Amino acid sequence: MERTVEQLKERIRVGGAKIPAEKVIKNGQLVNVMTSEIYPAEIAIYKDMIAAVGDEAEVADYIGPDTQIIDAKGRFLVPGMIDGHIHSECSKLSITSYAKAVVPHGTTSMISGLDEYISVSDLDGLQEIFAEVKKSPLKVFWGAPYKTPYTVPQSTVSFNFTKEVHQTVQKWPECFGVWETVTEFVQEEDEDTLGAIAEAGKNNLPVFGCAPMASGKKLNAYLCSGVRLDHESYDHVEVVEKMRKGMHMLIRESCVTHFLAENMRAVTEVNPYLARRVSFCTDDVTATDILEKGHMDNLVRLAIKAGVEPMTAIQMATINSAEAYRIDHLIGSICPGRIADILFVEDLQDFKVDEVMTNGNMVARNHKLTYELKAPERSPIFKGELKCAKTTADDFSYHVPIENGEAKVLSLDVKGPFVRKRRDVILKVKDGIVQPDTEQDAIMVSVVERFGKNGNKSLAFCSGWKLKKGAMASTNAPDDNNLVVMGANAEDMSFAVNYLIEQGGGQVVVEDGKVIEFLPLPVGGIVSDDEPEVVAAKEAKIDEAARSLGSDLPNPMMYMFFLPITAIPDYALTDAGPVDYCALTTYDPILELVEK
Amino acid sequence: MERTVEQLKERIRVGGAKIPAEKVIKNGQLVNVMTSEIYPAEIAIYKDMIAAVGDEAEVADYIGPDTQIIDAKGRFLVPGMIDGHIHSECSKLSITSYAKAVVPHGTTSMISGLDEYISVSDLDGLQEIFAEVKKSPLKVFWGAPYKTPYTVPQSTVSFNFTKEVHQTVQKWPECFGVWETVTEFVQEEDEDTLGAIAEAGKNNLPVFGCAPMASGKKLNAYLCSGVRLDHESYDHVEVVEKMRKGMHMLIRESCVTHFLAENMRAVTEVNPYLARRVSFCTDDVTATDILEKGHMDNLVRLAIKAGVEPMTAIQMATINSAEAYRIDHLIGSICPGRIADILFVEDLQDFKVDEVMTNGNMVARNHKLTYELKAPERSPIFKGELKCAKTTADDFSYHVPIENGEAKVLSLDVKGPFVRKRRDVILKVKDGIVQPDTEQDAIMVSVVERFGKNGNKSLAFCSGWKLKKGAMASTNAPDDNNLVVMGANAEDMSFAVNYLIEQGGGQVVVEDGKVIEFLPLPVGGIVSDDEPEVVAAKEAKIDEAARSLGSDLPNPMMYMFFLPITAIPDYALTDAGPVDYCALTTYDPILELVEK
Repeated sequence: MERTVEQLKERIRVGGAKIPAEKVIKNGQLVNVMTSEIYPAEIAIYKDMIAAVGDEAEVADYIGPDTQIIDAKGRFLVPGMIDGHIHSECSKLSITSYAKAVVPHGTTSMISGLDEYISVSDLDGLQEIFAEVKKSPLKVFWGAPYKTPYTVPQSTVSFNFTKEVHQTVQKWPECFGVWETVTEFVQEEDEDTLGAIAEAGKNNLPVFGCAPMASGKKLNAYLCSGVRLDHESYDHVEVVEKMRKGMHMLIRESCVTHFLAENMRAVTEVNPYLARRVSFCTDDVTATDILEKGHMDNLVRLAIKAGVEPMTAIQMATINSAEAYRIDHLIGSICPGRIADILFVEDLQDFKVDEVMTNGNMVARNHKLTYELKAPERSPIFKGELKCAKTTADDFSYHVPIENGEAKVLSLDVKGPFVRKRRDVILKVKDGIVQPDTEQDAIMVSVVERFGKNGNKSLAFCSGWKLKKGAMASTNAPDDNNLVVMGANAEDMSFAVNYLIEQGGGQVVVEDGKVIEFLPLPVGGIVSDDEPEVVAAKEAKIDEAARSLGSDLPNPMMYMFFLPITAIPDYALTDAGPVDYCALTTYDPILELVEK
Repeated sequence: MERTVEQLKERIRVGGAKIPAEKVIKNGQLVNVMTSEIYPAEIAIYKDMIAAVGDEAEVADYIGPDTQIIDAKGRFLVPGMIDGHIHSECSKLSITSYAKAVVPHGTTSMISGLDEYISVSDLDGLQEIFAEVKKSPLKVFWGAPYKTPYTVPQSTVSFNFTKEVHQTVQKWPECFGVWETVTEFVQEEDEDTLGAIAEAGKNNLPVFGCAPMASGKKLNAYLCSGVRLDHESYDHVEVVEKMRKGMHMLIRESCVTHFLAENMRAVTEVNPYLARRVSFCTDDVTATDILEKGHMDNLVRLAIKAGVEPMTAIQMATINSAEAYRIDHLIGSICPGRIADILFVEDLQDFKVDEVMTNGNMVARNHKLTYELKAPERSPIFKGELKCAKTTADDFSYHVPIENGEAKVLSLDVKGPFVRKRRDVILKVKDGIVQPDTEQDAIMVSVVERFGKNGNKSLAFCSGWKLKKGAMASTNAPDDNNLVVMGANAEDMSFAVNYLIEQGGGQVVVEDGKVIEFLPLPVGGIVSDDEPEVVAAKEAKIDEAARSLGSDLPNPMMYMFFLPITAIPDYALTDAGPVDYCALTTYDPILELVEK
């Protein structure tokens, strides 16, 4: 973190008790994650800095006439927690709204690429988000996305993050590393990706990874490129191999993938020493999930439940992440010179976060912010219209060069939030158009480019959502955040798309030319400034509406909006077309045509 | 470490076994410091990189027709060790000679400011040393000295390291942090020091500390400036406080200060968890010391003797240092992508290093390099003459404004290698000159500026060396490396100085106008390219000669040449004059004059 000489002087004077502390916390039990000790200690705070930590006699010197005394009432004082890898945009909450949701649960910092904001804006948009972060009680340690778009073949986003961009942004004070460098791009020696890694070497920045199921030679190749850490292991055996080979491991527990209990076996069953470099992340969460279960506090509780000591679990949520990301000089512990992010916790087993201090300010109590936090005015970068033309039903009709007959099509068959397998279906062709068939569960899905770049509209067949009628669409659709639409008929698909264009983005479920449910996402078409409770309620209603169309998936909308992610085999769909992720090419969904 | 995209591609291909390994180590027991496990594993190596670590099946894919198989014969494979803080110049061995001494003992990397080379040359000289390092089997992770000279009041060196210099050098690929930032300079808000720290914030570089006896408010102030680690604690209580407050701690065991046994009580008696962030350094060592006791291998043995498990001791010598300095992506463990520094060790308790691989090459066996390592040709930067004029006896005669009588003088009384206390002595004044008195053990000492800057010559009285006759002088004299001379009479002092001027630097002991012993230091007047054994033998003879003059100190020459270090209370002597380190001013050694 950059500090001027003048700032350093002030810090030194405060640390030396030449300037009195603004606040002193008394009567607390310090959870010292650096030493694994718990003991009574007082904490002196000035602005956002911890000036002193010690016994009453030591801290007494920091108390001046105006110093505010905060009585911890015997509670444990725990460092603010760190979400080690999170796309907060997935929650559909703006930074401001997201902070309202997670900070009261003790998450005071997150590591994020803010990559979805970038995908719908540009570097100016990113600066606007940085400014929002600075006004929020949540800190973001930004990793510059290794490249965008993340897709192979390349899809369309508002802004392409190239190696040249890295040469600029890695010098920004907000940049703490390279974000989510995916195994395949390293393995395939992608020029932008390697350019980003090379640049990080020059700037002394760590490279964050994403290496699901990497092992053996594949993992070795990846490590030889210099990637430091990973946040995605499917089982504890994978965790053990990665850690033996020197990686820091973030265990992920997202709203859709529940890895903690299984991954933690690396620590509880294989080798307790591994705990030293294990930390936590959520990757993707929904407002609903946070309000129901909590956030990093939930992961601490899950870890304790999985058999880890409370101190160890807390270290995983704090100092271990900070060390993995090389930001332990700033956050992750309660020590002089660190940022004053402090949680007040009644009981370390239950781990309910009572009160939260971030940046030296008391900001939350009983899982609620204690002050009014307003979202900033949005510039035209984020409140602009969708840059795509209105559609007609014909845009979502699959034309083929036969008039009538049968088409054997490759349908993307959803098997989990990120997994799509091949399913061959024979559909009727009528008047030159392949007919979706709700009886066979083979309907249409499309991604509409919405940044005014090329007017792309892909079209493919999908299964598993089981829509019997209507359509649904979303402009929050990582990683590109183009407009994804799925429907039982072309008319409703077109209606849904046009409705979102009119509204400037959001999620919608329609039936017979009518909106059943709409979740507005006015900030860049991806997030909302509404209260987390409002978004959570809308989320429930949207999925309920999708289920009213026939779906029995747990999160029909989310399963749909993950379709453009090409990072996980076998199939995906971007604005550039349907993608075979094993071959890394687009594919033709029409396997065979029989004229009849 | 900077790597080009082309280098990254080669590394990735090697890691992926698309290019065969150059070497594979078989039949070894991997000491995995990342996980605290020991198990059989093979290691594939390509150039200076570890490409793969795994079982026979995994590593088999890396073996090509030309791959050399190295049989570890069941020995333990330990990461190359790191000296976490060392001024190798103090050993009077050049980098090349120093590498010959320490690498065969398993020290494959050192963290160093190379500050004494800089004090006698400049940034071009430093580049010459970097070039020498690259040709040696020893790696140096350079920290840019926080400022030079380190002295208050300011003394004279060849090159002043200022905050402006930091703006340049911190961008060099060789720079890994800010070196030895001394507490007092932070506390006093020295502009150059704070400028260096501020610059490090911009460049994502850690700030290394030097905080002997800092505790409470003084320590807090220091930590608020952002210093990450310390290498100098006088007892284990100090270690515990620093670690509770978040510091990484290097335990120092130098040739003159033996802190390991006492400091290690923090781990063995107070809290075993502290081991996680404890590492080792030697700071100052002599050739004699290394040849007798070893180097980092000795510290591992001492730690085991102090009650630490061998694995823990090895972690202190490897990964813990690497993490403290944020170079764990390069060294400190045997993992894919790290530099291939590997020790072959028969027994972890005895910890005798049998063979050594550095940068992928087998370089040492049985405590000897296995190949001929030649020192580079020295440029005029380092083989130039001393830039000071010849002296006369009068230069070392203390003139006072009375003709005859008595002078009460403040004599620097040596109490340890770095500690000098006040001693008041009454000396005769004859013909306007204060007469040194060997009976009272009050003799003369001087520092002669030797970089052609200002012709400074200080003069003071000292006690404790007990020279009865003759003189001794040295141009190796940290931190400034001006010429220090001490003697029972002014004639021999002048003779000694003039002799070193003629020889271009070194250490000399003289008596009655004759050289008893001379140790040449032709590289910058501070180090020698001779074999460690040659320098060690000379070292013994020099001290023997000094003892023949009457001294009973363990290392009379070293105690003398540490005199210009102003970092430790109470008194010191630089070319700028005698220094009262408590008042941070020069002082007048004449306390009182009585004409008789």
